[in-house]
Amino acid sequence: MTHEDELRATRLAYIALAHLVEPGRRDLGVLVRQVGPTVALRDLVAGNVGDDLRQVVAPRLATIAPRGRFAEALLHAARATVDAERLGVELLTPVDDGWPHQLDDLVRLSVEGRGTVDRHTDPPLCLWVRGAEPLADACDRSVAMIGARAATAYGEHMATELAFGLAQRGWTVVSGGAFGIDAAAHRGALAAGGVTVAILACGVDRPYPVSLSGMFERIVDAGGLLLSEWPPGSDPHRARFLVRNRVIAALTRGTVMVEAGARSGARFTLHRAMRLGRPALVVPGPATSASSVGCHEEAREEGVRLVATVADIVEDVGRIGLDLASPRRAPERDADVLTDLQAQVLDGVRQRAARTAEEVAAAAGVSSRDARATLPALAELGFVVASPDGRYRLARRVNPDGVAT
Amino acid sequence: MTHEDELRATRLAYIALAHLVEPGRRDLGVLVRQVGPTVALRDLVAGNVGDDLRQVVAPRLATIAPRGRFAEALLHAARATVDAERLGVELLTPVDDGWPHQLDDLVRLSVEGRGTVDRHTDPPLCLWVRGAEPLADACDRSVAMIGARAATAYGEHMATELAFGLAQRGWTVVSGGAFGIDAAAHRGALAAGGVTVAILACGVDRPYPVSLSGMFERIVDAGGLLLSEWPPGSDPHRARFLVRNRVIAALTRGTVMVEAGARSGARFTLHRAMRLGRPALVVPGPATSASSVGCHEEAREEGVRLVATVADIVEDVGRIGLDLASPRRAPERDADVLTDLQAQVLDGVRQRAARTAEEVAAAAGVSSRDARATLPALAELGFVVASPDGRYRLARRVNPDGVAT
Repeated sequence: MTHEDELRATRLAYIALAHLVEPGRRDLGVLVRQVGPTVALRDLVAGNVGDDLRQVVAPRLATIAPRGRFAEALLHAARATVDAERLGVELLTPVDDGWPHQLDDLVRLSVEGRGTVDRHTDPPLCLWVRGAEPLADACDRSVAMIGARAATAYGEHMATELAFGLAQRGWTVVSGGAFGIDAAAHRGALAAGGVTVAILACGVDRPYPVSLSGMFERIVDAGGLLLSEWPPGSDPHRARFLVRNRVIAALTRGTVMVEAGARSGARFTLHRAMRLGRPALVVPGPATSASSVGCHEEAREEGVRLVATVADIVEDVGRIGLDLASPRRAPERDADVLTDLQAQVLDGVRQRAARTAEEVAAAAGVSSRDARATLPALAELGFVVASPDGRYRLARRVNPDGVAT
Repeated sequence: MTHEDELRATRLAYIALAHLVEPGRRDLGVLVRQVGPTVALRDLVAGNVGDDLRQVVAPRLATIAPRGRFAEALLHAARATVDAERLGVELLTPVDDGWPHQLDDLVRLSVEGRGTVDRHTDPPLCLWVRGAEPLADACDRSVAMIGARAATAYGEHMATELAFGLAQRGWTVVSGGAFGIDAAAHRGALAAGGVTVAILACGVDRPYPVSLSGMFERIVDAGGLLLSEWPPGSDPHRARFLVRNRVIAALTRGTVMVEAGARSGARFTLHRAMRLGRPALVVPGPATSASSVGCHEEAREEGVRLVATVADIVEDVGRIGLDLASPRRAPERDADVLTDLQAQVLDGVRQRAARTAEEVAAAAGVSSRDARATLPALAELGFVVASPDGRYRLARRVNPDGVAT
């Protein structure tokens, strides 16, 4: 097999696996990390896995590979690829160039997870994406905005205003496409002409809730994205919303909880962001409002920060957002050592796309002279890497688990 | 001179000094700590002090001791004592039994102070008190509630509600007797039948503002206190409010800022509480409200905590309130080592009044059996001291500067 063939087989194996199990299962994730997706799929088809996993997979396996053959599963995956193309949907796997590798951080959550909700926190195996913007670019400078469906007028106002301001400053607003805070956030970003990403708990071909379909179409039309770990045609099961939330937390540089009652599910998403080392931010509200109780309680927890303005959010996600794993970073590479100008210039550098000093200057909103003067120092400090052709990209980071991010 | 005579002379010296300078002056405080109040007064009268201090004192000295005699100054102090008695006002100095020694912590602020506002942060030399409750008892379990004069209906509602709840739980609410948040806090405490203390920037015989005089009378009638560092008859100068604020921060176990605009003076008081090692707490409000901007900005600062309920406040001041100088406490005496029951029992022990196990139980709200079982352990841990007659009081604390608190 050529390298190309092998890559294609790996890709199909990921897609087949994504059709066999619900996302986030740790046992399958561990298996894939140990033996790779192709061997994992072969073991799964052959029933050569743990009892739990074998029993869970059995019903879908009977549909996808009724004669228990590995080739049947690959064929199903190939058909899914064709289906996605036909629908104009991009199908991404971890071996594809456009894969957002910040999702790899979820491995950490998965290992630490104890409770019921925390059981299915492994990284996605596949992503289905609708929209023109490359996913990794869209999420490079992104903030998650979450909160209650049953939001107050105040909460929706705040979500709209903050999303508007973030979009104006070039940040992508990521949310869950639900009623209340989610919809207000998407709409605020749209109003500013910004890119917004709705991460769904159902197929991207039929986004739920149906009554928001006008908004979903506008998101795509405006250059934003609809994203799902579930294949087209999938229904929005209740449990899927909780499982989906980890992707909202992991894909973004920080999570802002705008309004949440005492028992809101949004608090789980906030906790996940925090455990992933992302800034966990909450918006204050009247202390008399039951819809802000969750925000105020979280604000009293270690590591959660209050944000009342767009500037507050940018300060918190901009600084730490330079490095999603900031708390684990070596001190000599800490963003705190940077001057304001250096930090601003660094914001204009990307990890996957090497940029000229001029492009960095344009992205960061500084003069070309400042960018040219600052980038060599950032390279010396280890924040950026200079190519021989004079372009710069963010230095590759490796966390203590050896997972490149 | 007998010890009694000496004490009386010292007391008169403090009172004379309090009439000669505005409160909070560090240069005079340092002199008093070096040579004692009697010698300091003698030096002051003789013009035997630094240029600054001599010039500042000159005009008042011309009135109080026109012939430049030490005895004149003492006589003036003696007259002030008689005046206070006639007005039914208690006149306290640091050598009196009822002096609240938590004010000694201000020495630390004074030494650290850099800015203009921070220049006059030395402890008071005298306090004039109107009301029946002994000051030290009233402030033993007390919370300061501060905020803007130009408060919103929301802010006044929160101040009233929180003060009501604190008073219900036996906490004294301390504030500045001003319009807005201050008045709402005093009124909330009064509504709950609680003790509330108004710390004034003028004489306690004519509390300012005049239109709140009904409230001031009710405070005294309900067993609360009016307190001032200025002698009866003193006017409420603008600068006096800022100087007075340090006493609000120092006298209490923590400060709650209910509502404050971006440039509110309440923020200085909050900072002083923080620098004194007291909990600095802020109440959230709508992020759209200019009157909450100061609270939200403070909530983003290291060490400031958000409180949305009475329970939040009690949790924060109750825990750290065991020891006003908690951050400087030796680790083996840290309240964190205590069980919940031990901490609760400790809350019932006082520093100045030794209590039986039964009295501690009643104050702490635990069974006598629990109190009897727990107090010996607390004594062993160094938190309380047992008297031979089986009573307990809080262990005396000494901070690293050697100032007993």
